[in-house]
Amino acid sequence: MSTKLLALSLSFCFLLLGGCFALREQSQQNECQLERLDALEPDNRIESEGGLIETWNPNNRQFRCARVALSRATLQRNALRRPYYSNAPQEIYIQQGNGYFGMVFPGCPETFEEPQQSEQGEGRRYRDSHQKVNRFRQGDIIAVPTGIVFWMYNDQDIPVIAISLTDTGSSNNQLDQMPRRFYLAGNQEQEFLRYQHQQGVKEEQDNDGNQEQEFLRYQHRQGVKEEQDNDGNNIFSGFNRDFLEDAFNVNRHIVDRLQGRNEERGAIVKVKGGLSIITPPERQARHPRGSRQEEDEDEDEDEKEERQPSHHKSRRGEDEDDKGESRRHGDNGLEETVCTAKLRLNIGSSSSPDIYNPQAGRIKTVTSLDLPVLRWLKLSAEHGSLRKNAMFVPHYNLNANSVLYALKGRARLQVVNCNGNTVFDGELEAGRALTVPQNYVVAAKSLSDRFTYVAFKTNDRAGIARLAGTSSVINDLPLDVVAATFNLERNEARQLKFNNPSRFLVPPRESEKISSSTTRV
Amino acid sequence: MSTKLLALSLSFCFLLLGGCFALREQSQQNECQLERLDALEPDNRIESEGGLIETWNPNNRQFRCARVALSRATLQRNALRRPYYSNAPQEIYIQQGNGYFGMVFPGCPETFEEPQQSEQGEGRRYRDSHQKVNRFRQGDIIAVPTGIVFWMYNDQDIPVIAISLTDTGSSNNQLDQMPRRFYLAGNQEQEFLRYQHQQGVKEEQDNDGNQEQEFLRYQHRQGVKEEQDNDGNNIFSGFNRDFLEDAFNVNRHIVDRLQGRNEERGAIVKVKGGLSIITPPERQARHPRGSRQEEDEDEDEDEKEERQPSHHKSRRGEDEDDKGESRRHGDNGLEETVCTAKLRLNIGSSSSPDIYNPQAGRIKTVTSLDLPVLRWLKLSAEHGSLRKNAMFVPHYNLNANSVLYALKGRARLQVVNCNGNTVFDGELEAGRALTVPQNYVVAAKSLSDRFTYVAFKTNDRAGIARLAGTSSVINDLPLDVVAATFNLERNEARQLKFNNPSRFLVPPRESEKISSSTTRV
Amino acid sequence: MSTKLLALSLSFCFLLLGGCFALREQSQQNECQLERLDALEPDNRIESEGGLIETWNPNNRQFRCARVALSRATLQRNALRRPYYSNAPQEIYIQQGNGYFGMVFPGCPETFEEPQQSEQGEGRRYRDSHQKVNRFRQGDIIAVPTGIVFWMYNDQDIPVIAISLTDTGSSNNQLDQMPRRFYLAGNQEQEFLRYQHQQGVKEEQDNDGNQEQEFLRYQHRQGVKEEQDNDGNNIFSGFNRDFLEDAFNVNRHIVDRLQGRNEERGAIVKVKGGLSIITPPERQARHPRGSRQEEDEDEDEDEKEERQPSHHKSRRGEDEDDKGESRRHGDNGLEETVCTAKLRLNIGSSSSPDIYNPQAGRIKTVTSLDLPVLRWLKLSAEHGSLRKNAMFVPHYNLNANSVLYALKGRARLQVVNCNGNTVFDGELEAGRALTVPQNYVVAAKSLSDRFTYVAFKTNDRAGIARLAGTSSVINDLPLDVVAATFNLERNEARQLKFNNPSRFLVPPRESEKISSSTTRV
Repeated sequence: MSTKLLALSLSFCFLLLGGCFALREQSQQNECQLERLDALEPDNRIESEGGLIETWNPNNRQFRCARVALSRATLQRNALRRPYYSNAPQEIYIQQGNGYFGMVFPGCPETFEEPQQSEQGEGRRYRDSHQKVNRFRQGDIIAVPTGIVFWMYNDQDIPVIAISLTDTGSSNNQLDQMPRRFYLAGNQEQEFLRYQHQQGVKEEQDNDGNQEQEFLRYQHRQGVKEEQDNDGNNIFSGFNRDFLEDAFNVNRHIVDRLQGRNEERGAIVKVKGGLSIITPPERQARHPRGSRQEEDEDEDEDEKEERQPSHHKSRRGEDEDDKGESRRHGDNGLEETVCTAKLRLNIGSSSSPDIYNPQAGRIKTVTSLDLPVLRWLKLSAEHGSLRKNAMFVPHYNLNANSVLYALKGRARLQVVNCNGNTVFDGELEAGRALTVPQNYVVAAKSLSDRFTYVAFKTNDRAGIARLAGTSSVINDLPLDVVAATFNLERNEARQLKFNNPSRFLVPPRESEKISSSTTRV
Repeated sequence: MSTKLLALSLSFCFLLLGGCFALREQSQQNECQLERLDALEPDNRIESEGGLIETWNPNNRQFRCARVALSRATLQRNALRRPYYSNAPQEIYIQQGNGYFGMVFPGCPETFEEPQQSEQGEGRRYRDSHQKVNRFRQGDIIAVPTGIVFWMYNDQDIPVIAISLTDTGSSNNQLDQMPRRFYLAGNQEQEFLRYQHQQGVKEEQDNDGNQEQEFLRYQHRQGVKEEQDNDGNNIFSGFNRDFLEDAFNVNRHIVDRLQGRNEERGAIVKVKGGLSIITPPERQARHPRGSRQEEDEDEDEDEKEERQPSHHKSRRGEDEDDKGESRRHGDNGLEETVCTAKLRLNIGSSSSPDIYNPQAGRIKTVTSLDLPVLRWLKLSAEHGSLRKNAMFVPHYNLNANSVLYALKGRARLQVVNCNGNTVFDGELEAGRALTVPQNYVVAAKSLSDRFTYVAFKTNDRAGIARLAGTSSVINDLPLDVVAATFNLERNEARQLKFNNPSRFLVPPRESEKISSSTTRV
Repeated sequence: MSTKLLALSLSFCFLLLGGCFALREQSQQNECQLERLDALEPDNRIESEGGLIETWNPNNRQFRCARVALSRATLQRNALRRPYYSNAPQEIYIQQGNGYFGMVFPGCPETFEEPQQSEQGEGRRYRDSHQKVNRFRQGDIIAVPTGIVFWMYNDQDIPVIAISLTDTGSSNNQLDQMPRRFYLAGNQEQEFLRYQHQQGVKEEQDNDGNQEQEFLRYQHRQGVKEEQDNDGNNIFSGFNRDFLEDAFNVNRHIVDRLQGRNEERGAIVKVKGGLSIITPPERQARHPRGSRQEEDEDEDEDEKEERQPSHHKSRRGEDEDDKGESRRHGDNGLEETVCTAKLRLNIGSSSSPDIYNPQAGRIKTVTSLDLPVLRWLKLSAEHGSLRKNAMFVPHYNLNANSVLYALKGRARLQVVNCNGNTVFDGELEAGRALTVPQNYVVAAKSLSDRFTYVAFKTNDRAGIARLAGTSSVINDLPLDVVAATFNLERNEARQLKFNNPSRFLVPPRESEKISSSTTRV
């Protein structure tokens, strides 16, 4: 069954052919001559009023090879991550917590509308309306396309922890390799800016004749200092006030706020009294209750949505109702089609897994077949959970780089390159990230009762090739080829092909099982 | 209405998903850490017998970031731009004038045929036939695919001025970043060659240990000098005469002409007595008369073509008549399908605009939805015209770099990067070009009665996100998110969302209108 | 007819538009400022027990520009090329010999099964089963996708010679430009590893401040030495023995073999007594007989296959029979679709040519229209055979780089760049390779009775533009444009357009024919 799934994904690959390309840029020459990988922790943290953003240095060689950037945001209760957009697609995994997020698709209608009567009697005269607001929960993958404004909000007590992979190697990014956040508000430096400087300095040392660049850098440093003293660092900060007054038709006070002058609240701000957002009431009501039970609920929220489509849909803006008919035909080219695209999918432990062995663990993947917007981003993801001493057989990514982030527990991993060298042999523990480059071979064994991880993959139809067990590469070679290849007798070759009946996950040996037998995956 | 258009374009994006990728290469690391942009004039001019080619240095950092090259050709009356092809797709905007152009698609039939009887009694015995010849006029965008031979000719008194963007970052270019013209004739250096040298010299200084390259450069300089003394610089110049005599079965005199030996006429040559080209007569007749009225004619030439299709089509080569039936089904795979592809579209001021506000201005775009061949080139364009003091609201390009070229008048522009720094704050005046990198925010205000520009964009479905006005990003965010994000009271946030009822273009304020009220856009 | 073929291919290009992109990475800046090309022989050879692998240095400037790597493998009788996979797609041309090859597609079923009864009475108890095994013969192109395990075997007396182009510039390769072989077995260094070192050293000289890299290189050299002393160099070598014991559930002895410890047999091993592979018996029987006649047989093996599809298909695994119905509809998404994809096509001299002139020669091409899997690889190929003194007219590759490898005889070639400089003027003789970059103009004249070559092209729909002869670019330009362009009289221009009635291949002149008149192409 699990084999079918993989095969299915690969078959589509062939069927659609052209649609299967990674459409990513390559690394610079030699960037991937990696002789040593490291399980890395974030190396920088930026405190905000309502939370924290931690980043990994994107100039680290293993991220440069994979052409991705990694960051982790923590949002306290009632914290809002201010709207921003990036020069590359992002895949966000919700490690913990629940809340709301929104994206703004230019040209889409505002489909969430306030009712006529004032809600809280505050004396509003205008009805507010805006684009769709989504609920997220622990275990969700959220897909954020390049250049699309994104915000998120935590309305619960549990802090939200969100891991974000930014794929700067995407062909959707027409700038250089540096990840860039364009903030709509505030006075904070975008979180990857410091690495831009660092890289500049490194270059300076390597290549000291480059006067022009040095001058620019000086200019820039001066600019930053000046900026931080008075102006903001958001996309409105650099504009002339007159321009903004004209563009928004508002007074100077509001323009000052827009430009983020003299404030120090950071990228994540506290919302006094919490946000009041227009959303279907039954979902708002259900979630605060549900948030603590979610670890145990096996049913996917998405399936629940499916059961009540009529009500849910009817809450969306009125102009859609008129066009309800045409929306059922996916190719009408009208704005509803994009504006209602699904942007999240749950792959956490509570979801129904794609690969499951009660003694070994479970794996769930999300590709563009599950979440079509990923076809645009050219990214996919995998969530895995391994029981103690269970093993993920040696395998490699056929068509993607993979960034493994450990969520819980720890595991021993080994990664081997094309020269047969061990480029990683160590523990990956919760909170650390390891890059596994395309085609490098990796195997893992859980050292904890439950080791869980999320893997971000730089292809929307990432596939793996397993090297051991049933339906593995070795298993699919002719017996005589295996014997001749490995210099084995036929009966030894037969053992190599058939001795392990597992596919992806190998349960612990009998001797190892005792210690973990009572744990439930 | 205008929103719908944008939304439409974006929706297709999602629908076709994979079809929406830029398919462009990325810039080198750090190439886009631009702290200052400049409105640039061409920095080199090459005189020819019949005109002039001016170029912008493609090694300029802002062009290197956008991975494009810009040039401007001026053709006098009866001047022919000699056939050439490039290693990257080109988008040409006709700033001024009318004339003919042709492209040669390998494998397509010669569909324009001379009648049996001699036309001018010159005693021709052979009937000439060739591929389609097209008429162009002011305001046209012409799409020239990679490697396709292109020529153009001015048969009018007004000089033709053509701005050309060459997208060296296109994945259709499998060579390096340097724009290359391959001339079929003449002795002139290809116009971007000098920058190749310049770049070499710069590199030399940076990296003086590189002996091999230095040697090659020396070799090359010697080669160039030698070449210019006797041989030509066209693609036939390098061949042995015997090869060409055999290949063309012609005598040595003709081969010498083919190789461009000892001539100094340049890339644009004068045609004595003018070209006599086979074209439908009614169009030839109409244009010389029409050329001076075109500023005022609002009707699109393309629409006129639509009204007389039967006559027009019947003038095209005879073998098409036999296959007329099959041509109506666009997917038969026969050569007619490609050979009759539309290669130009008018987006100048006289065309019906996509965005229009009589007090502010007009904008017309051409994407691959309008001109399907652009899907192959992965380029699009926009023509804008702004009345005095009218403003294009702050916005950014979602998925493309943009090169703005001012056609008439001048405007004040501001461009802001991800750090909130103003990377451009100045005037863009007629004849200058400014690169606006992907996701950088830009706003413009016209300082002239009519500021017109053309913007070349490196995506065939380039989309923008507006930051102010109705249906802008700010407008589409929930009111509470706007308030919390910008630290505003609800009623202030409401002003920010709703105060400006314009969408793309903001008319001048009442106080500013007086001076320009009589001007017609 | 030949024109139609080209046109057809180009038309599809336009029809499918987006499907026509090269989807390849670009070369680094300046990589393609090639002032001199060379006809190169392999510069390194690695002997193995059963054969030989020769490689061309991928850091050679002309390969760096084209972003490809070239190698040549020779397999003696009963030699097996051990299974490996690469970080980039490969196109393999069989210059000589016959044999078997296999690929393993992850997730595909094992469709070749052993019958119930033991075949040779050796006492096997298990029935072996594996994925499809294919027969190859001289003149075949074999397409190997990125990351797919590939092996080949020579069961004949004539040594197998296979030329392989690895397209490291493919977007399927998400690592850097270095070609990498990941061997499943053995102790041999992957054949391109030495160039990685070399490049490192070159860089070191250029850029001596780079301490980090120097340290890594040192580390690496130490690692390699250590490795070669005891461990293997295959993908299992780097793993901990315990990991492999668990993953395969086999004993330490087998794990040692898996890791390739203390063996020196190399990438190509001898199989004592030969391989016994499950394959349809009639094909096994036919080939040993046919192998010596193949030079003369004109009929394509593939066509033979077509005639007996029912028998052939019924030999494939049993589970396919159940799904036979659905397989006829190409878009069912089930694994059979990919698992039975055609992976080879014969383009050698014995095949029916696409372009044929009995006095000049013959050309056969394979594109993704002929072999759909090439659409995934974005590669195509061409096989040509020219009679003595026959000429391939000056032409250029529209949308691809081309690597010409001479199979037999020798020819004089000239290649000209965009500056009109001759970058190659010399002989290409059997066993040498020449890169012709995109848009560079090339012409060839055979100096042998039969000059044969194979050209690997980096686009699955590579097209050429011819510059001389009927339906060439010159021929398709209007007569007056030709006259004005080349400064010719009309009657001279007419000669240039019409004097050569040939299209692709020009037969030798009458005076040259005498010497070669008796040779049959």
